[in-house]
Amino acid sequence: METLFWENGKLKLLDQTRLPAEVEYIECKNFQEVAEAIKSMKVRGAPAIGVAAAYGIALAAYEYKGNQSCKLIEEVLKAFSVLGQTRPTAVNLFWALDRMLAVAKKYREDVPGKIQSKLLEEALKIHKEDVETNKRLGAEGEKLVPERAAILTHCNAGSLATAGYGTALGVIRSAYRKGKVRRVYIDETRPLLQGARLTAWEMLKEEIPSTLIVDGMAAFIMQQEKVDMVVVGADRVAANGDVANKVGTYGLAVLARHHGRPFYVAAPLSTIDLNIKTGHEIPIEERDPDEVVAFMGTNIAPKGIGVYNPAFDLTPHMFINGIITEEGVVTPPFEEGLKRFKKT
Amino acid sequence: METLFWENGKLKLLDQTRLPAEVEYIECKNFQEVAEAIKSMKVRGAPAIGVAAAYGIALAAYEYKGNQSCKLIEEVLKAFSVLGQTRPTAVNLFWALDRMLAVAKKYREDVPGKIQSKLLEEALKIHKEDVETNKRLGAEGEKLVPERAAILTHCNAGSLATAGYGTALGVIRSAYRKGKVRRVYIDETRPLLQGARLTAWEMLKEEIPSTLIVDGMAAFIMQQEKVDMVVVGADRVAANGDVANKVGTYGLAVLARHHGRPFYVAAPLSTIDLNIKTGHEIPIEERDPDEVVAFMGTNIAPKGIGVYNPAFDLTPHMFINGIITEEGVVTPPFEEGLKRFKKT
Repeated sequence: METLFWENGKLKLLDQTRLPAEVEYIECKNFQEVAEAIKSMKVRGAPAIGVAAAYGIALAAYEYKGNQSCKLIEEVLKAFSVLGQTRPTAVNLFWALDRMLAVAKKYREDVPGKIQSKLLEEALKIHKEDVETNKRLGAEGEKLVPERAAILTHCNAGSLATAGYGTALGVIRSAYRKGKVRRVYIDETRPLLQGARLTAWEMLKEEIPSTLIVDGMAAFIMQQEKVDMVVVGADRVAANGDVANKVGTYGLAVLARHHGRPFYVAAPLSTIDLNIKTGHEIPIEERDPDEVVAFMGTNIAPKGIGVYNPAFDLTPHMFINGIITEEGVVTPPFEEGLKRFKKT
Repeated sequence: METLFWENGKLKLLDQTRLPAEVEYIECKNFQEVAEAIKSMKVRGAPAIGVAAAYGIALAAYEYKGNQSCKLIEEVLKAFSVLGQTRPTAVNLFWALDRMLAVAKKYREDVPGKIQSKLLEEALKIHKEDVETNKRLGAEGEKLVPERAAILTHCNAGSLATAGYGTALGVIRSAYRKGKVRRVYIDETRPLLQGARLTAWEMLKEEIPSTLIVDGMAAFIMQQEKVDMVVVGADRVAANGDVANKVGTYGLAVLARHHGRPFYVAAPLSTIDLNIKTGHEIPIEERDPDEVVAFMGTNIAPKGIGVYNPAFDLTPHMFINGIITEEGVVTPPFEEGLKRFKKT
């Protein structure tokens, strides 16, 4: 099952807000629809957002039917601006847009048809690379997994969060194939339940033994020594190794350290942002309070209650035992290693 | 609004599973209905369960219409057995049943009418004492609250969890009345959302400034120094100060310690079980997986996923800065202080 794919000049997206109840693809015919899908989290997960945005740029280019390249570029720049404002935290979005922008610049003097096909080519390349990157990352991360491991994960850093295979779940998949995974514990991940809805769905489909817990149970299962390691994805990694990821990650990292369990972050190099020195510079998106107080249209909390709803939190590098990239695992001190891998 | 009350020979219970959407009382005509209401958490919270169970015994006594005291006692003993098997963790249930049993024993040779009225008297007394106990506990706990405090709480240890006023929320209420509460942060408390549904409702009704968060956000707001102290209730406190409380409590305690925030447990003496040496001896109830995977009849996770659903977790005494009782605050080492207060 593919998270997203290009078909007949359109982007097809698996609507992740409706999983697991319904498996339904939506069609994006223009960049505005892609932007909408990213904002509303029909497509989510840092790498998947990047790929979707790249296709959004390609759609914007093909929307232009005239023969003036400068006009086409003008249209495409509007798409960059709109797509760049969809979600602030995951850096893969900006990384993918930057790659697309470089192509637009390179071919800006060419005929519209050529610019269009070059942009689409780049989007397809970003897409293909993402799957390959995840597989390499999975293989690197697998080496960290002990035999008969019970692994705790948060949110969904799976094939649904990427173009395929997944980052944190890529590590789990690779380790499972080597017979090393005893059990996966899945934080349901409130408010949007990406763990319960998406990670559980992925694990169940591949018959990887899994147990769903509410987020507040993680500490208790660590106390009971049911967890050997924690592995999560990332939305942005700062140059010093600080990590922004789905809210709840930071607490898990502190708890893992307290219980002496290693805490790993699986992040392709596209998630590492060397322009950001520390996590404090990463913008943390706050989302609609309704995500917390309403569930499928039903209010679970009384009307009028105040709500705080940051989508992400910040895990200082000191709580992270390793950052798993497609080039290998970076261990503390992170600054040097991240810089080295990022430049290869 | 009362959590429960005795009216025309029946027990009226505010159905807490339907709050905050509907404010509805159910009527329990016999002890089986009380047992059902406790099991299904229509009434919940350690002290409230104790009061409800006491009324359940009174109902059982009044169900007997004959004139043989030994038969009446026989019937009542059945009720003890059934009510004692409803929920294993909260000790107040057993504490209240023990008080009722002592009365049944004392008057077992009297005429049925007298046994009945003595049992009802004792239930009413337990009920009345609970409110008074909470108020005294609140006044003791208030002394621990600094000026302009932001207080984090988990689950509902409010008037709904007790016969009125509340334990953890009793502390907050008392401190608020003294002008010391800047903000209350409420963990929504998955799976059953007692924070979002019940604590938010209580705080909103009294216009105490409150912010609802998902459980995974607690660490992040501590990191941002938005929390001055944590106060929670308890379902059972062991002789050494270990605490069983709603799942999620243990993680909060570790996080509070890590961030240098005091962590307090508000527990009337009826919640302290000196027969249990350490928390490891406290039975932890596991509940239906459906509480995690289904929400209002809708499945949020794919069918077939494994679930772990302990209703409580265990907080070792080393993470607790103080146990707030109606006789005063017990500080570490707890063993001595708990014993002293329990015996007064």
